[in-house]
Amino acid sequence: MGIRVTVWNEFVHEQNNDFVRSIYPRGIHEQIGGYLREQPGLEVATATLEQPDHGLTEEVLANTDVLIWWGHAAHRKVRDDIVDRVQGRILDGMGLVVLHSGHFSKIFKRMMGTSCGLCWREAAERERLWVVNPNHPITRGCGRYIEIPNAEMYGEHFDIPEPDELLFVSWFEGGEVFRSGAVWHRGRGKIFYFRPGHETYPIFHHEGVLQVIGNGVRWCAFDGNTETIGIGVCSNIAEPIEELSPKDYVEGEIEHPSESLAR
Amino acid sequence: MGIRVTVWNEFVHEQNNDFVRSIYPRGIHEQIGGYLREQPGLEVATATLEQPDHGLTEEVLANTDVLIWWGHAAHRKVRDDIVDRVQGRILDGMGLVVLHSGHFSKIFKRMMGTSCGLCWREAAERERLWVVNPNHPITRGCGRYIEIPNAEMYGEHFDIPEPDELLFVSWFEGGEVFRSGAVWHRGRGKIFYFRPGHETYPIFHHEGVLQVIGNGVRWCAFDGNTETIGIGVCSNIAEPIEELSPKDYVEGEIEHPSESLAR
Amino acid sequence: MGIRVTVWNEFVHEQNNDFVRSIYPRGIHEQIGGYLREQPGLEVATATLEQPDHGLTEEVLANTDVLIWWGHAAHRKVRDDIVDRVQGRILDGMGLVVLHSGHFSKIFKRMMGTSCGLCWREAAERERLWVVNPNHPITRGCGRYIEIPNAEMYGEHFDIPEPDELLFVSWFEGGEVFRSGAVWHRGRGKIFYFRPGHETYPIFHHEGVLQVIGNGVRWCAFDGNTETIGIGVCSNIAEPIEELSPKDYVEGEIEHPSESLAR
Amino acid sequence: MGIRVTVWNEFVHEQNNDFVRSIYPRGIHEQIGGYLREQPGLEVATATLEQPDHGLTEEVLANTDVLIWWGHAAHRKVRDDIVDRVQGRILDGMGLVVLHSGHFSKIFKRMMGTSCGLCWREAAERERLWVVNPNHPITRGCGRYIEIPNAEMYGEHFDIPEPDELLFVSWFEGGEVFRSGAVWHRGRGKIFYFRPGHETYPIFHHEGVLQVIGNGVRWCAFDGNTETIGIGVCSNIAEPIEELSPKDYVEGEIEHPSESLAR
Repeated sequence: MGIRVTVWNEFVHEQNNDFVRSIYPRGIHEQIGGYLREQPGLEVATATLEQPDHGLTEEVLANTDVLIWWGHAAHRKVRDDIVDRVQGRILDGMGLVVLHSGHFSKIFKRMMGTSCGLCWREAAERERLWVVNPNHPITRGCGRYIEIPNAEMYGEHFDIPEPDELLFVSWFEGGEVFRSGAVWHRGRGKIFYFRPGHETYPIFHHEGVLQVIGNGVRWCAFDGNTETIGIGVCSNIAEPIEELSPKDYVEGEIEHPSESLAR
Repeated sequence: MGIRVTVWNEFVHEQNNDFVRSIYPRGIHEQIGGYLREQPGLEVATATLEQPDHGLTEEVLANTDVLIWWGHAAHRKVRDDIVDRVQGRILDGMGLVVLHSGHFSKIFKRMMGTSCGLCWREAAERERLWVVNPNHPITRGCGRYIEIPNAEMYGEHFDIPEPDELLFVSWFEGGEVFRSGAVWHRGRGKIFYFRPGHETYPIFHHEGVLQVIGNGVRWCAFDGNTETIGIGVCSNIAEPIEELSPKDYVEGEIEHPSESLAR
Repeated sequence: MGIRVTVWNEFVHEQNNDFVRSIYPRGIHEQIGGYLREQPGLEVATATLEQPDHGLTEEVLANTDVLIWWGHAAHRKVRDDIVDRVQGRILDGMGLVVLHSGHFSKIFKRMMGTSCGLCWREAAERERLWVVNPNHPITRGCGRYIEIPNAEMYGEHFDIPEPDELLFVSWFEGGEVFRSGAVWHRGRGKIFYFRPGHETYPIFHHEGVLQVIGNGVRWCAFDGNTETIGIGVCSNIAEPIEELSPKDYVEGEIEHPSESLAR
Repeated sequence: MGIRVTVWNEFVHEQNNDFVRSIYPRGIHEQIGGYLREQPGLEVATATLEQPDHGLTEEVLANTDVLIWWGHAAHRKVRDDIVDRVQGRILDGMGLVVLHSGHFSKIFKRMMGTSCGLCWREAAERERLWVVNPNHPITRGCGRYIEIPNAEMYGEHFDIPEPDELLFVSWFEGGEVFRSGAVWHRGRGKIFYFRPGHETYPIFHHEGVLQVIGNGVRWCAFDGNTETIGIGVCSNIAEPIEELSPKDYVEGEIEHPSESLAR
């Protein structure tokens, strides 16, 4: 069985803006999904905000190995209980790939614990995403950098937890830098944030960008240890390894604390 | 001016359980606060669940450099809007010290993004907290380990993000280990989780444990860069460093994407 | 083509100690190599100290994807130029799996930059290796922990750089803990240190230990970005992205520095 | 007693190149040392390559809390036994601040375990060092970035271990980025690498750069745990915490391994 990918898109701009629709006539989700469907070993579905439960029912999530997230205008319209559900599934092993303006989505902020704020400028400037980690499967095939001729700028400070591994750092023509590709582990799940992508630029037609998204999907699919407990629960482990030593401490007959606990 | 510390305690067990009250007659917050008040350079206040806004008003938080958190039985009673407020203040630079069963508090789970689950056993067993990071101010003065004669066991897997720095690892008589002291950075704030402490054991009378809490308070106080932007906001930075190159891309006159963005 | 593994062993104890030979009659390298040869997708060779160039010629290393290292009594007999050679090959993408007393090998100390010191006790005590990272392929199949009934104890402080990912923490019957499984990235190479293994205990006959070594081999095999430059070289990149702005600074006609560089 | 700083400089360019001498008439070490001497709480000495033991005798190092290192043309002339000595002192708690071309020094490569290679271009281009970590004392007072009007470019990939904390990322006019400020812990010592500085640019006259070096010195001074053992030694800890359980394993009477060690 292949890796089961669900591409989620808020799907707003493409329906209410002619220019955006001219770039992504079937929606950003179908543009990305279309690319991924051509890759071996992936089974690709899509989901959007307007669907019941935003298309993210318990059943859909249970059958998703990696969720891709794109949102921009409608972050607040995502229901909190669905965010809870997605978080739970990530902690249980589902991968999450967050693209571009998804940095401000509820689910990304939930997983990071930070504001995920940043600085931006929309001036169609040149961007280079430099590889700073040659060890990682996600940077495979990227050469020394990926170049995007016209991009919205995202600048530091990007308010994220220090990444577990930093993969790409962007250079922008206008003077800024940005930590554009980074991964984190949360529970049994892996998270990959990747900066490129915008509704008014054809970034998701860029071969290099699509390749990295594909690499990210493969890396985020779970291949770790499912037997671990402690994910989501606080379990009483009744049995010690063997007889414990006689207690110095007896409940209700406690010595004066400052005595019994002196180092 | 010293470091302004607020010790927060849900203050439930001490009011409804005689045995716990015999150990902490004035509450865990006053036991810890009493120790800290004797340390130079600290200004110590306390706050509890039953106070208006749980004692954590905007004004209190604005005047708190480091917040210490102890909770166990009443995590769910903490109001979500207060959790939002505390999170905002942490991202803006307030330190957070989370003790023992506070691992399951709303604020700790919010900052971590994980379930913060673990395994436990209450058998008054012996614990050794081994120093695994000799570089950190928080382990100063701890020798090779701290020993607690009777402790509740906490075992792995502890569902936390990989710590920025792991400081202590506990050994338990009954066969488990636990990552007992660890730090993370979130926004401009620092977070220190420290495992020891229980309502039915006199852990907060232990000199070694109190010393580490004091070290933790000093380390968590902000001494970084307050001018950073991106914390909590998404700011438009209008001006590039200099004139940008002529655009290849003109909105509305876009070439076919697969052409213009070929690498 | 499979992953090409070379198992290196100093092969001293097995030749001069009858008891050790009774456990590892063909040497530790053949015991581990024998297990790995039965696994799909691995091509396994061995090398030992007494061979020319310790069996680690340029050709052997060029054809090795992952090197496993076991040494104990003869670390000092390993030639420095061979250590240089192995380091160079690791930075160029070869994986390294270091076992047990290999912590004090020249190559491990070289890659870590630290003393790699630790504490130990030989008392055949019980050990549990707890999984602390459920996300990692190396912990797959390990359950919550691996138990070894009789092991040499290794205790903290283990003088290593903070691991990129900490995978296992050991509990020992005698009261110590140890960071027993950890990974680091260096250049294009991956490094996995795994604690179990001793010449007078049959640790390398333990199914759970062997399984982890196999997982480690697969994870350490390079699958990243080979086009990166900067590994081992300091390269002049002559061409900027485009015309640079007119220089404020002209060599030989420099203004007084405190003037020209004022912020 | 203040923090005892030793500023080390190979001191070659300033003696054999008139232009460099015009910028640093008393040497780079005196330029940096002069700034530091004006800061409260620092006691500043200097040392150079041409002195006996390169000015780094056992006595000098024993009385140095933080060593600053600048070298460029003469890395190979630094004696290996002095590198060993400096490494030992770092692991024992001395801080190390490495500047600019010191990235290729023997001591930095020794501490990192990597080649420390990078790419470079000398075209007096504009550089901005962006703060990516607002939590760290080293970035205090830096605003959002430090700008240097004319700098030698250093570009990725920079072959270093992933930093414990990444503090600055540089933007260069010519299209590159670089991880310009980063810290690592090794043994009991702290290491700070800071990119700016060149012999033919007056970088060490830049107030912002000097301020960061001062911040770095204060942060690198040891304030951790000196009682830790395992730094540089492999110690036999004879005594377990208490009587161990009866051995299953008796040396020389071992059961068949595959039996006794079955999980």
